[in-house]
Amino acid sequence: MASPGAETKKPGNHNDFVQLCNPHVAAMKEDVLYHFSLSTSTHDFPTMFGDVKFVCVGGSPSRMKAFIKYMAVELGLDHPGAEYPDICEGTDRYAMFKVGPVLSVSHGMGIPSIAIMLHELIKLLYHARCSGVTVIRIGTSGGIGVEPGSVVITRQAVDGCFKQEFEQIVLGKRVVRNTHLDDWLVQELVRCSADLGEFPTVVGNTMCTLDFYEGQGRLDGALCSYAEKDKQEYLRAAYEAGIRNIEMESSVFAAMCNACGLRAAVVCVTLLNRLEGDQISSPHEVLVEYQKRPQRLVGHFIKKCLAAA
Amino acid sequence: MASPGAETKKPGNHNDFVQLCNPHVAAMKEDVLYHFSLSTSTHDFPTMFGDVKFVCVGGSPSRMKAFIKYMAVELGLDHPGAEYPDICEGTDRYAMFKVGPVLSVSHGMGIPSIAIMLHELIKLLYHARCSGVTVIRIGTSGGIGVEPGSVVITRQAVDGCFKQEFEQIVLGKRVVRNTHLDDWLVQELVRCSADLGEFPTVVGNTMCTLDFYEGQGRLDGALCSYAEKDKQEYLRAAYEAGIRNIEMESSVFAAMCNACGLRAAVVCVTLLNRLEGDQISSPHEVLVEYQKRPQRLVGHFIKKCLAAA
Repeated sequence: MASPGAETKKPGNHNDFVQLCNPHVAAMKEDVLYHFSLSTSTHDFPTMFGDVKFVCVGGSPSRMKAFIKYMAVELGLDHPGAEYPDICEGTDRYAMFKVGPVLSVSHGMGIPSIAIMLHELIKLLYHARCSGVTVIRIGTSGGIGVEPGSVVITRQAVDGCFKQEFEQIVLGKRVVRNTHLDDWLVQELVRCSADLGEFPTVVGNTMCTLDFYEGQGRLDGALCSYAEKDKQEYLRAAYEAGIRNIEMESSVFAAMCNACGLRAAVVCVTLLNRLEGDQISSPHEVLVEYQKRPQRLVGHFIKKCLAAA
Repeated sequence: MASPGAETKKPGNHNDFVQLCNPHVAAMKEDVLYHFSLSTSTHDFPTMFGDVKFVCVGGSPSRMKAFIKYMAVELGLDHPGAEYPDICEGTDRYAMFKVGPVLSVSHGMGIPSIAIMLHELIKLLYHARCSGVTVIRIGTSGGIGVEPGSVVITRQAVDGCFKQEFEQIVLGKRVVRNTHLDDWLVQELVRCSADLGEFPTVVGNTMCTLDFYEGQGRLDGALCSYAEKDKQEYLRAAYEAGIRNIEMESSVFAAMCNACGLRAAVVCVTLLNRLEGDQISSPHEVLVEYQKRPQRLVGHFIKKCLAAA
């Protein structure tokens, strides 16, 4: 578990090994990470992953592949003809890429999909005896009251009722976890965005929902039983509660990283302003450029950390 | 909405057009199905999809591609050099394939991921003016008290507390939906399995959870705060409640199809018996053969329906 004050710790503490919150795993002879198609009996995790210091995760496999190519160039590790094979090539559930100390992993869409990935990722880091690891989600989201293309760095992940918690059912009983994110990391990412000066960046709360349509107050799903004014009332109340964007993974991401003592942040670009509409209809090339913004910000942060190490 | 008795209706009612539960969509000039990378302004939905009668959905894109190839052969629509291009090639969120009256769509893992897909799929079928459509999820699951490789046809989808309902948050308020599945379709699929006589098939309740590890009582996740005996107690109580398998999509699938009057079924193979373990460690080729079983069963059902039409 994270020690008190862990959220203000700076990166680079190499004695800080990744821990599990599960006493059973240490006693297992073999651990099959089924959704990665990797196993401790067929893969040498310390050799493959022991040097990982930064894990970046995002929904789309192709975006996470583009990110590793970008990081290779930024870190001076790219070379003509370089390939970045999918480490999880045995499955199409997730894609994983690595260059130097950076691991890039896709997580699909929604809390259950990222939770499966995080269980197996945290076990991977534990089996590999990684230390001083920072995990950052770089994603897309709907903005509330911010200009499309703005990047939101999450202060707190909240649920659809604006509560700062993540609820799940374990053995038929309700368990509630804390969704606090690392304050030092938020401030450092704000400084990195100021260094770059390329796009608007705000710090705000992020609402994490289980549905993209009704769950986010959209009027354009296959089901909808409310009107424009009900939607506006809900989104304006969210804005009043400090919420600046909506996505579908941050709460369980914060809860699981928190529970396992991993330094974590959520950096999402907003593809539209939900106070003005529901459909994502900007031209493809505009959306592609927006999606690169969290990558550029986090790339800058990683380079800065490595230069200071 | 489904009319009373809709669940016992037989297929082949061609006046039964796909309906939405949302009055707003009819008034939209354009509808962008963002996660399919399709739009009513750039694609002719009635021409592309108007003849669809069977939609099969499953988690993995490669499995859904294999299914459409299998169906092409089974329906005599395959030919040397035939290709089955991904209709959603503009995105890597979902993959979609079509042959004759059969559409095959991937949905990723978990309730939120399949819900996004279903919102856009049901709107696609509505815009295409499809009628008499049957939707079947062909997936994988963990079994409870059944031999690995058994196929479970879902009677009722239940939540992690064994309740036959699907709960979601809409505009900050709890909404509960019915997860009833089509009784006629269950019985017809049972008959199809008997026709084939290739693998054990049972009808049972299916537990749908938001997490694969703690949410399904596994001891091998990154987090776990209970013991083997607590897990056994939970899984045995599930068995007593008529639950024969656990997966992560059936409840919202049943709820959304129900709400939009679509005839629907869930057919999942079990990859392991959870009373005996947590890890999916059978040899790759065994798991591959298991995963073909729901495809063979549903393929037989589709051929039987088309022969009777």
